[in-house]
Amino acid sequence: MTSSTTISKWDIFEHAIEAEVAGNPYTETEFRGVFRHENRAVRVPGFYDGNGVFIVRFMPDTEGEWTLTTESEVAALDGATASFTVTAPREGVHGPVRVRNRMHFAHADDTPYFPFGTTCYAWTHQPLAMQDKTLKTLAASPFNKIRMCVFPKDYPYNENEPLHDVFEPVGDGTYDYDRPNFAAFRHFETQIGRLAERGIEADIIIFHPYDRWGNCTMSEEQDFRYLKYLVARIAAYRNVWWSLANEYDFLLDVKPMTRWDRFFHIIEENDPYRHLKSIHNGDPDMCYDHRKPWVDHVCMQNWDVKKTSEWRRDYGKPVVNDEPEYEGNIFQSWGSITARELVHRFWITVLKGGYAGHGETYAHPQDLLWWAKGGELTGESPRRIGFLLDLIKEDVRNGLTPFDEITGHGFPWNRVSGARDGDVTFVYFGEHRPVIWSTGFPLQDGDYEIDIIDTWNMTITPGKKVPAPVPRATRHADVVRGGKADAAFGVELPGKPYLAVRVRPRK
Amino acid sequence: MTSSTTISKWDIFEHAIEAEVAGNPYTETEFRGVFRHENRAVRVPGFYDGNGVFIVRFMPDTEGEWTLTTESEVAALDGATASFTVTAPREGVHGPVRVRNRMHFAHADDTPYFPFGTTCYAWTHQPLAMQDKTLKTLAASPFNKIRMCVFPKDYPYNENEPLHDVFEPVGDGTYDYDRPNFAAFRHFETQIGRLAERGIEADIIIFHPYDRWGNCTMSEEQDFRYLKYLVARIAAYRNVWWSLANEYDFLLDVKPMTRWDRFFHIIEENDPYRHLKSIHNGDPDMCYDHRKPWVDHVCMQNWDVKKTSEWRRDYGKPVVNDEPEYEGNIFQSWGSITARELVHRFWITVLKGGYAGHGETYAHPQDLLWWAKGGELTGESPRRIGFLLDLIKEDVRNGLTPFDEITGHGFPWNRVSGARDGDVTFVYFGEHRPVIWSTGFPLQDGDYEIDIIDTWNMTITPGKKVPAPVPRATRHADVVRGGKADAAFGVELPGKPYLAVRVRPRK
Repeated sequence: MTSSTTISKWDIFEHAIEAEVAGNPYTETEFRGVFRHENRAVRVPGFYDGNGVFIVRFMPDTEGEWTLTTESEVAALDGATASFTVTAPREGVHGPVRVRNRMHFAHADDTPYFPFGTTCYAWTHQPLAMQDKTLKTLAASPFNKIRMCVFPKDYPYNENEPLHDVFEPVGDGTYDYDRPNFAAFRHFETQIGRLAERGIEADIIIFHPYDRWGNCTMSEEQDFRYLKYLVARIAAYRNVWWSLANEYDFLLDVKPMTRWDRFFHIIEENDPYRHLKSIHNGDPDMCYDHRKPWVDHVCMQNWDVKKTSEWRRDYGKPVVNDEPEYEGNIFQSWGSITARELVHRFWITVLKGGYAGHGETYAHPQDLLWWAKGGELTGESPRRIGFLLDLIKEDVRNGLTPFDEITGHGFPWNRVSGARDGDVTFVYFGEHRPVIWSTGFPLQDGDYEIDIIDTWNMTITPGKKVPAPVPRATRHADVVRGGKADAAFGVELPGKPYLAVRVRPRK
Repeated sequence: MTSSTTISKWDIFEHAIEAEVAGNPYTETEFRGVFRHENRAVRVPGFYDGNGVFIVRFMPDTEGEWTLTTESEVAALDGATASFTVTAPREGVHGPVRVRNRMHFAHADDTPYFPFGTTCYAWTHQPLAMQDKTLKTLAASPFNKIRMCVFPKDYPYNENEPLHDVFEPVGDGTYDYDRPNFAAFRHFETQIGRLAERGIEADIIIFHPYDRWGNCTMSEEQDFRYLKYLVARIAAYRNVWWSLANEYDFLLDVKPMTRWDRFFHIIEENDPYRHLKSIHNGDPDMCYDHRKPWVDHVCMQNWDVKKTSEWRRDYGKPVVNDEPEYEGNIFQSWGSITARELVHRFWITVLKGGYAGHGETYAHPQDLLWWAKGGELTGESPRRIGFLLDLIKEDVRNGLTPFDEITGHGFPWNRVSGARDGDVTFVYFGEHRPVIWSTGFPLQDGDYEIDIIDTWNMTITPGKKVPAPVPRATRHADVVRGGKADAAFGVELPGKPYLAVRVRPRK
């Protein structure tokens, strides 16, 4: 059997059924599809899209012939069938991102993925022209992930009304949380799809506390239903990541910890693709316990980026520090660091085996701050962040492992940052500017090249090889005095801050 | 009764007795003085100074008539008497430093003391001309405390033999730890006295692990005797601080924790002046438990200076971060930060209610690094550190309290640094550069002046007063929307990093 419908792997197959169903289908009607390929069956929740239309979506991960059968208590939604052929993925489509090598990520086709994300919380709630501008800016930027909220945002610099109400208004500024505005969800997922076409992961923030529409104080039942609905609608987009919340701890007064745990379970029960799941904290001391098995990677807000390797050890999962403060100049202290400082924090984070996130918060007369609304990037950090990403893409295959893990010694890697993958080594000195360095370099001589990287001026200059310094006893118990160097060679450095070195076999 | 001998308060009265005593007086002879003023009696241990000379020293803290009577099992040392008159302190002599206001320091005469120290571990073990140069450099520097070791130092850049052996050599590079070289102690205390005359506190490091003479592996009995001897010799110097060790944790293999506790007790038993006592760590995670009651202030090595207010909370004692890394360019990562970074760490530390220490480690062809040997300062940080100290001296009387303690809120003081004493307020932005600020400013309008301080260029410019930004709700539970400003006024800032502001009543 060959179906005449064809779809590329990791694209979306969609099946819609029109049916007259009594009551409120959002709250009352269960409906799902069972997708079959050979002996395998995948159960996928469907959802109500308004106007008597029920939809089930599916992102196939395997080429070949697939069939669909629908299941429901409602006769009109039960037993519908379809078939389709899944072909090779389109060029540039690599499938959803997974954890790989315990601390890193890759697409489903094994293409390494290095999350270098940015933040535009409420970009999909802005006027459409502004949203188009955001997509254009993103496409020209180095960023390959964006943090974005389902719900609109009420916050400093976020005064405007959203493009769409997410639930149906019932007057007096209140809403019926049992009746979604389907147009809002259609628009939201359209923009996820446009991100996917640009190769950008959509880090979907499901709950957040910056609210004047009551979205964050829905009942437990309404929360659970909304979450299941969202997953049913958008899980088929290959670029979805689930971020349970932004600053979840600022919602603990209305959503206790058990509910957060249950949110994770609901996603697991309804997302057959197992998209990445995490949750973002406000207070640096209030991280969710990322060791819980349903958390795929650590998402956090913390400016103290030298702790990155500590977080790796604490949680044993990939670390994505999505808010190491933002490039900007507003009076809020999380949004006023220099571009140089943000670039510095990116380098430290990445060379301690984690990933960092970008945001831009320059005061603007019309409150058009990239971090909230998107639009245009005017800062100095994105180019430098892109320069770092290019260096990583060029040589890193499995992901960087920080030297404190490789060697079992914190020192000196708690002060400077260094990491290795295969035979490429990076060391970042930051505020340090030694005139010579060798620690972390290869122990065997060979045809290695050393480059000195100016992280701000984005230059790469061949370094001068010199004999490695020979460490000397530093305490009474040291047996070796005048012993051996800890590397086969060293490099002379110009004594300036914000430099890195790269060592790799000459090609 | 008026004695013909007079001495100024907080200077040293010394009484020597020559006596032929059998055996080894260092290990066998107990000898003390009892100093009496009216009904008060102070017991002070004496010490053997070699060549049949026994000495007892005393630093009087009260003006008037004093008498001395010696006590010993040895008849020749028992029952000697003397009397002397204590007069007002000489100009510039303020007495030993104490803890004041729980988190800060003052001299015995209540003159505030702000520790802005530097480090020259082995300066008293260098050639004499070099030592003179060190004293000259110190006198011209802003530094008012110096960390210095009793024992010589064996470490990278510290290869040379010391000026004096501390114990008598017995051949083959070994020493008799039961026989001090009295000349070494005489020289050491002479230099303490010269520091005192220059108004510089001597932070005496009693043990350390950088050793090739066996000093750090003496027996417990020898350790205890050495410590008691050192206290008997030098406690009368008003500028002494007791630092039990540098990097004590690197000595735990030879001196267990109970011995460290006992060291503190021995000092308390033998130092009638109760000079400040603390102990310095190597590994940032291996701080001694500074909550123990015999620790007067927290001494630590840690580069993560934004934790300063956390350490205040943890220990409830003054925090002196003596090693927030050093200005320099050597390959050791603790000694290669830029001057700008060290100045930055000083500002953060001080505006979080602590104190920081300086060190300078520039590679030198003859290994003359200030941090170890003294000599000359060539770096760019001392002037800027002095600029900060001058600002503090100008306005601070009781010591700065960080705003997180004043307000009970970590945010935003975990990101930027700010503190107040009386009616002077300082905020330091560092890597942050908001274009407007008001948080921490006075709540009542009045005749305040605001100055913008460029911490690197050392300029003070009047700031432009502007209306304080009005905070807006940032989460669902905030009841006030469009509420009141958190200050009576704000200041416009130029959007550059490394700035501070000062607010104080116009004089």
